[in-house]
Amino acid sequence: MKINVVTNILDANNRIANDNRTFFDEKKVYVLNLMSSPGAGKTTLVEKTIIALRERFKIGVIEGDIQDSYDAERIAKLNIPVVQINTGGACHLDGNMIKETFPSFDFDNLDLLITENVGNLVCPAEFKIGENAKIMILSTPEGADKPAKYPLMFAESSVLLINKIDLAPYVDFDLKKARHDALAINPDLQIFEVSCKDENGLEKWFTWLTNAIENFQQNI
Amino acid sequence: MKINVVTNILDANNRIANDNRTFFDEKKVYVLNLMSSPGAGKTTLVEKTIIALRERFKIGVIEGDIQDSYDAERIAKLNIPVVQINTGGACHLDGNMIKETFPSFDFDNLDLLITENVGNLVCPAEFKIGENAKIMILSTPEGADKPAKYPLMFAESSVLLINKIDLAPYVDFDLKKARHDALAINPDLQIFEVSCKDENGLEKWFTWLTNAIENFQQNI
Repeated sequence: MKINVVTNILDANNRIANDNRTFFDEKKVYVLNLMSSPGAGKTTLVEKTIIALRERFKIGVIEGDIQDSYDAERIAKLNIPVVQINTGGACHLDGNMIKETFPSFDFDNLDLLITENVGNLVCPAEFKIGENAKIMILSTPEGADKPAKYPLMFAESSVLLINKIDLAPYVDFDLKKARHDALAINPDLQIFEVSCKDENGLEKWFTWLTNAIENFQQNI
Repeated sequence: MKINVVTNILDANNRIANDNRTFFDEKKVYVLNLMSSPGAGKTTLVEKTIIALRERFKIGVIEGDIQDSYDAERIAKLNIPVVQINTGGACHLDGNMIKETFPSFDFDNLDLLITENVGNLVCPAEFKIGENAKIMILSTPEGADKPAKYPLMFAESSVLLINKIDLAPYVDFDLKKARHDALAINPDLQIFEVSCKDENGLEKWFTWLTNAIENFQQNI
């Protein structure tokens, strides 16, 4: 019975997410669903990505949090359109929450919508929102056992950013194991080693994203 | 409608958790519910706590994970009774999962049952399991904004261990803000600054736990 309830919720969500996707296609807006544990560096990545790509693409941001609007306030300082979703206890964004932000954006003036999910390695991977790609961050202090422990997140993502690579020497992070286990789950996963703090390695991520947006806009 | 479903699930869980608590009281077993983000150091804390207190108390462990049994294998090496719960996708333990482990333990030979929850700062705080105390770990690389972003976890916990304090200089962790915001949510919260890696600060945690178990056993 409990499983049926959950299945129905996921089915309903998939329908709304597909509607969102159709809408984004019409508007030629490329959408990222950014996921990670709490504190892995999502908001800092969003900030750095905006600064790197804002000359090339018109960018909007959705911030998802249980409550509060600290992250949205950080993004607003960059003079980028941003909407804060407060899930009120829910541990993930869903298609309907994204749909409710539509009146707040001018989608004819957007190329890229970055959606920052609630910090959580479990549920965000289950709920589509209408994204083109799921991007996940694994930070080195979390440990290299995370692909084995939270496989759905790695299976669903197109890109894995291994962040806080500057901390790797202090936290005994086994990079080889993390890469191996992540690729065993998802052989197509693009993996970039980065430090959002000192910006090392971010250039490859910017190139990947630029190509993804341009391919999408040319082929839609 | 969705809210009603969730409320019913929580009510049903509370009833099972209360039954578990009655059972643990009869057996004089003190139960911890240990919660944190993925990779904050839960399993290492369990290992260190076992090593420090095993002469004084008979200890058992429940490991909660989406899938896999790596953590239970780590604990089993210490020759401690341990049961692995695989939640099969669920992002938290609940009362019924704990109840199902009962046949696997000899509770007449236990003083302390340490339950390690799924790595997640949201849902584990909502689901009681029959614990005496919720203990949470916040690791410094996660950042000092976590009390404001995940308040229920801090509101529900009796003890906050600020772990990886050895990394604080490398990650610009604002200890004063973390303490202030956590205590604003929960003035009764016991806060210990520790490094599970080099064992700094753990003595105060061991003392707190020893006193808690002895008080419980004398007064039940």
